[in-house]
Amino acid sequence: MSEKRVSSSDMKLVVVGAGGRMGQALIRAIHEIDGARLAGAIARIGSPLIGRDAGEVAGVGPLGVVIRDDVLPVFADAEGVLDFTSPAATVEFAKLAAEAGIVHVIGTTGCSEAYDEKIRTAAARAPIVKSGNMSLGVNLLSVLVEKAAKALGPDDFDIEILEMHHKHKVDAPSGTALLLGEAAAEGRGIDLVSQSVRSRDGHTGARENGTIGFATLRGGSVIGDHSVILAGAGERITLSHHAEDRTIFARGAVKAALWARGRKPGLYSMRDVLNLND
Amino acid sequence: MSEKRVSSSDMKLVVVGAGGRMGQALIRAIHEIDGARLAGAIARIGSPLIGRDAGEVAGVGPLGVVIRDDVLPVFADAEGVLDFTSPAATVEFAKLAAEAGIVHVIGTTGCSEAYDEKIRTAAARAPIVKSGNMSLGVNLLSVLVEKAAKALGPDDFDIEILEMHHKHKVDAPSGTALLLGEAAAEGRGIDLVSQSVRSRDGHTGARENGTIGFATLRGGSVIGDHSVILAGAGERITLSHHAEDRTIFARGAVKAALWARGRKPGLYSMRDVLNLND
Amino acid sequence: MSEKRVSSSDMKLVVVGAGGRMGQALIRAIHEIDGARLAGAIARIGSPLIGRDAGEVAGVGPLGVVIRDDVLPVFADAEGVLDFTSPAATVEFAKLAAEAGIVHVIGTTGCSEAYDEKIRTAAARAPIVKSGNMSLGVNLLSVLVEKAAKALGPDDFDIEILEMHHKHKVDAPSGTALLLGEAAAEGRGIDLVSQSVRSRDGHTGARENGTIGFATLRGGSVIGDHSVILAGAGERITLSHHAEDRTIFARGAVKAALWARGRKPGLYSMRDVLNLND
Amino acid sequence: MSEKRVSSSDMKLVVVGAGGRMGQALIRAIHEIDGARLAGAIARIGSPLIGRDAGEVAGVGPLGVVIRDDVLPVFADAEGVLDFTSPAATVEFAKLAAEAGIVHVIGTTGCSEAYDEKIRTAAARAPIVKSGNMSLGVNLLSVLVEKAAKALGPDDFDIEILEMHHKHKVDAPSGTALLLGEAAAEGRGIDLVSQSVRSRDGHTGARENGTIGFATLRGGSVIGDHSVILAGAGERITLSHHAEDRTIFARGAVKAALWARGRKPGLYSMRDVLNLND
Repeated sequence: MSEKRVSSSDMKLVVVGAGGRMGQALIRAIHEIDGARLAGAIARIGSPLIGRDAGEVAGVGPLGVVIRDDVLPVFADAEGVLDFTSPAATVEFAKLAAEAGIVHVIGTTGCSEAYDEKIRTAAARAPIVKSGNMSLGVNLLSVLVEKAAKALGPDDFDIEILEMHHKHKVDAPSGTALLLGEAAAEGRGIDLVSQSVRSRDGHTGARENGTIGFATLRGGSVIGDHSVILAGAGERITLSHHAEDRTIFARGAVKAALWARGRKPGLYSMRDVLNLND
Repeated sequence: MSEKRVSSSDMKLVVVGAGGRMGQALIRAIHEIDGARLAGAIARIGSPLIGRDAGEVAGVGPLGVVIRDDVLPVFADAEGVLDFTSPAATVEFAKLAAEAGIVHVIGTTGCSEAYDEKIRTAAARAPIVKSGNMSLGVNLLSVLVEKAAKALGPDDFDIEILEMHHKHKVDAPSGTALLLGEAAAEGRGIDLVSQSVRSRDGHTGARENGTIGFATLRGGSVIGDHSVILAGAGERITLSHHAEDRTIFARGAVKAALWARGRKPGLYSMRDVLNLND
Repeated sequence: MSEKRVSSSDMKLVVVGAGGRMGQALIRAIHEIDGARLAGAIARIGSPLIGRDAGEVAGVGPLGVVIRDDVLPVFADAEGVLDFTSPAATVEFAKLAAEAGIVHVIGTTGCSEAYDEKIRTAAARAPIVKSGNMSLGVNLLSVLVEKAAKALGPDDFDIEILEMHHKHKVDAPSGTALLLGEAAAEGRGIDLVSQSVRSRDGHTGARENGTIGFATLRGGSVIGDHSVILAGAGERITLSHHAEDRTIFARGAVKAALWARGRKPGLYSMRDVLNLND
Repeated sequence: MSEKRVSSSDMKLVVVGAGGRMGQALIRAIHEIDGARLAGAIARIGSPLIGRDAGEVAGVGPLGVVIRDDVLPVFADAEGVLDFTSPAATVEFAKLAAEAGIVHVIGTTGCSEAYDEKIRTAAARAPIVKSGNMSLGVNLLSVLVEKAAKALGPDDFDIEILEMHHKHKVDAPSGTALLLGEAAAEGRGIDLVSQSVRSRDGHTGARENGTIGFATLRGGSVIGDHSVILAGAGERITLSHHAEDRTIFARGAVKAALWARGRKPGLYSMRDVLNLND
C-alpha cells in the first residue's frame, strides 16, 4: 500500500455516525484518499465510543481525532461532513452544516418528502450532495436504466426492480432500488410514486402495463445487490450491480465532498459528481 | 420426430380447461407420449371452443375429440383427468373424478385450506396426484432445498425464495414458490405459514432469524423462474430452477397420470411419482 | 389471435434453410407480420422436405409455397431473402441476391474475414442487413455495453462476456457474444480481435488489463443467454439478455427486411434498423 | 465483539505463507476462534516481512509471534499447520508436517497427480485435511451437486460448471470448480478428467452427452463465485455459491485443524470435517 500524501490544503472532513459500520468505513476512506483529512468524528450522545480515538475505533491506528457528541464546535472548524445516519439526524445535520456553510454529503436513505424539503432548504445555503448510492457502478447503472426504459416502451416491456441486503437492514425497498426506480421512471416520463407496485401477495390480478415493480430480499451479510429487469415478449434484459465491499460507498462519499468543495450552494447528485449526465 | 405408438391399452385421459394455454399444452403432451390417449376435452360453459376438435385447437391436427362442456359423460368413459384450472373448478372436478373412480392429476395452484380439505376427502376414493409443479427439475430442487435447509441452521443462514412469472399471472407467490417454501420448512422442522414473510415495504425492522421470506417479480412472458437463497455470514447458496417451456409441466402431468393408474386411492405428490423420496 | 391483413404490396420474402429450426421460425414470422408474404422457400439439395408445402412444415397450415432447391428462379421473383444458414451458403446467397438486386437479411454467424469481405462486396449492389443477433433486446444491450465500457476504463474495470446456448450449437463464442464484444471494444476504442481472451485453462497467469474475456456454456435447449460483466474493485455491473423464444430473432429479421426495402445498396446493422444509433 | 477465551489447551497452529492475503486471513481467524492459538508464522525466504510480528502484519495488533523463514523449529513446537500456498511448497510442508507428526490443513489448489501422490504418502504418517474449498457452503453444495447429477442422467441433462474469480488468480478452472466437478462425476459414476471439456473456442461441434463443461471468468476483486448448471430439454437447474469474504475459508481451515487434532493419520476432506457424508 502506498503512503498517503498529507498537505495543509487537505479538505477537513467530519464523520457523523462515527460508531456505525458506515461511519468507520468513512473514516478509513478519508484516511486513504489524498486531499482529505479527518477533522472530527461525531457519535450519538451516550455512545460508549465518546472520548475514544476515531482512527483506533475504525481500525487504522490513532489519528488524534477524538469521537465527540457536541456537533457545533466540530462543524465550525470543518469544511465538510459525511453523513450516513438516519433521516431525523440528517435533517438536523443539514441545518447545522448550512449554518456553518460547509459541504454536506448525504448517503442516508428513507427520507420522507417533508425531510427532503428541509434538505432542499438547507441546500440554498451550502452545497449538498445527496444520493441513495455513492458508488460509480450504481450511478452508471442508473444512466443505463434510464436509457433502456426510454427505448423499451411500457406496452412491450415491464420493468421490475429487485434488491437484496443483509439481515440487519430495517427499511425496504433500499434507497438504491428507489434511485434506480427514479431513473426508470425518468426514462419513461412517468411519476415513480404513483406507478410503483411495492409488494405482491395473494390475489394481485394481472400486471398493469407501465407500472414499476419492486421486490426485496433480506439475509446474511449481503452488502447490496440490485437488478433492474425489463421483460418483454420472448426476451428479457437484466441490468445488475453487485457491491462486494462497503468501501465503494465510503470512497464515493469522500470524492463527492472533494468535488463539492468551493461549489455554489445547491442540491447535487452523484451523477453530477461523476459527470455522468450527458 | 418419431411416430407415436398407439395401443388399445393406452390410458384414456380427459383435459379440463382445454381452451387455456396449459390445457392445450396438455393435449399436445398426451398426443406425444406413448401409453396415453386423449379421450375427452372440457372447456367452461359458454366457451367459443365448444364443438371444435381439441387437436386442431391445440395445433396438432384433428384428433377426433370434440371440446365439450358436460363433464359427467366424459369422465364416465375416461381413466384419468388432467387439471390445471382454478381452485373452485378443481374441487368440483375432484368430487366428480372420485365418483367416477378415476385418476385426478391436479396442477392447479392457490387452493385454500378449505379446498385442500375437500381434495383430501376425494382422495379417499380415487388416486389424486397434486403438485404445485409437475416438472422433474422443480421436484428434484425441492429435495435439495430440504437437505440444504436442514444442514444450514436458522441461526447461521437466512432462507429467501424468489420467483418470476409472466405479466398475466394473477396470484403471488406462485404455487411452486410455496412448494419450495414447504420443502425448506420441512428441512428446518418448522411451520411455513407462521414463519413466512410474504412481503416487505417501508420500515420492516431487521430480519427475524428462522423466517422464510418470499419475493415476487412479474413481467413479460416468463414461464417460471424460482430461486431459493440461503444467505449466511460471508457466503450464499442459491438453488434455482428455470423453466423454458410449458411442456415440462404438461409432460410431467401425463407421466403422473400413467404412474397413478391402478394405484390405491390416496393423495400423492410428484416426489412419489418421480421416486425422489429417499 | 388477430387475422393478418394481406395486401398486394406485401414484401415478397424467401426463406433459405427452410428445413431448419430458424427457417421454420422465419416462415411463421412472415406469416404473422403485416406487410410481409412468403414467396419462396429453399432447402439444401437432397433434403427430404423438397416438394412439401413450407407452411405445413412450419406448422402454420398450407401456404401454397413449395420448398425447392433451385435458388435462381425463386430469387428472381422475390424482394428479399432471410438467411440463417452457414457461412459458406450465405456468401453464395449474398452473391445471388446482389445479382437479383434484392434485400438480403443475414443472421448467419461464424463468418471468417474472407467471407465477410465477400458480403461487403455484395453489399455494393444491394442492401444487406447483417447482425449476430436480430432481437431488439440484444441490440439495445449492445448500446448500453458500449456506453458502460466507455465510462468504466480498463485500469479500473475488467470486461468479461459469458454466453450459454443449447447442446446442438457447433461454434463458440456465439455471434451475439462477439457482437457484444465489438460493442465493448468500440466503447474502449480498442481492437476486439487482438484484445480477446477466448479461453482459459491451466496456468493462465494474472488477467491482463484491457483485455476482453469470453466464456462459453453449452447444454440442454437454451435458446441464448448473454451477460457482459464489468468487474472493478469492490463492485460489479452485469448487463444481460435472456432469449426465451426463437421468434424474437425471426420477427427481427422480417422487420429488417421491411426496413431495408427500397434502401440504397449498403451493409446495414440492426442498430440502423432499430434506430439505436444516437 | 466478544473477547476470545484463551486456554493452555489451545491448539498451537502455524500459518505458512503468512505474508499473503490468505495467510493473513488465517492469522486473523486463529485469533478469533476459541481453542486455537497462533504458534508460528512462516514466510518465504527473503520476504521483507521476516522478523515482523505476525499479528501486526495481519492487522489484529501484536501477537508476540514473529514471522520466520526456518520451518523445522517452528513445526517442532506446533500441533498443526495451515497451508494455502503453492503446490511445490505444499508437498514440502506435507513431508515436514508428517515428520513432526502434526496436523496439516491444505487449501492449496492446482496440485498435479504426482504432488497428490506425495500428499497421500505424507497422510500415512499424520492427519491431513485437504480441500479445494474450506467453506461450509461449498462443501454442502458439492453434496447437492452429487445428488442432482445422480438423479438427472446424462441423456437428459448436461452439466456445466462456471466460476469467476478476481483478476490476480493465475490458474483455471479454480480448485473449487474442480471439486464441484468431482462431485458431479461421482454422482454420475464417471471419471472427471476424461469427461471434462475445459474450454471451447471456434468450431467445437455439438456437445457430447455425458461430458462436464467448465467455463472461467476473471475480473475485479471477486472472491469466488461458482455455479453448477444442469440443463435439460425445457428446464435448467442452477446450484450456486457466492463467497463474499475470504474469512469463510480461513475459519473453515481452523475448524478443520481443530477437528483433525488427535485423529489417526489419513487423508480427510472437508465433508468429513463438516459431517456431510450421510
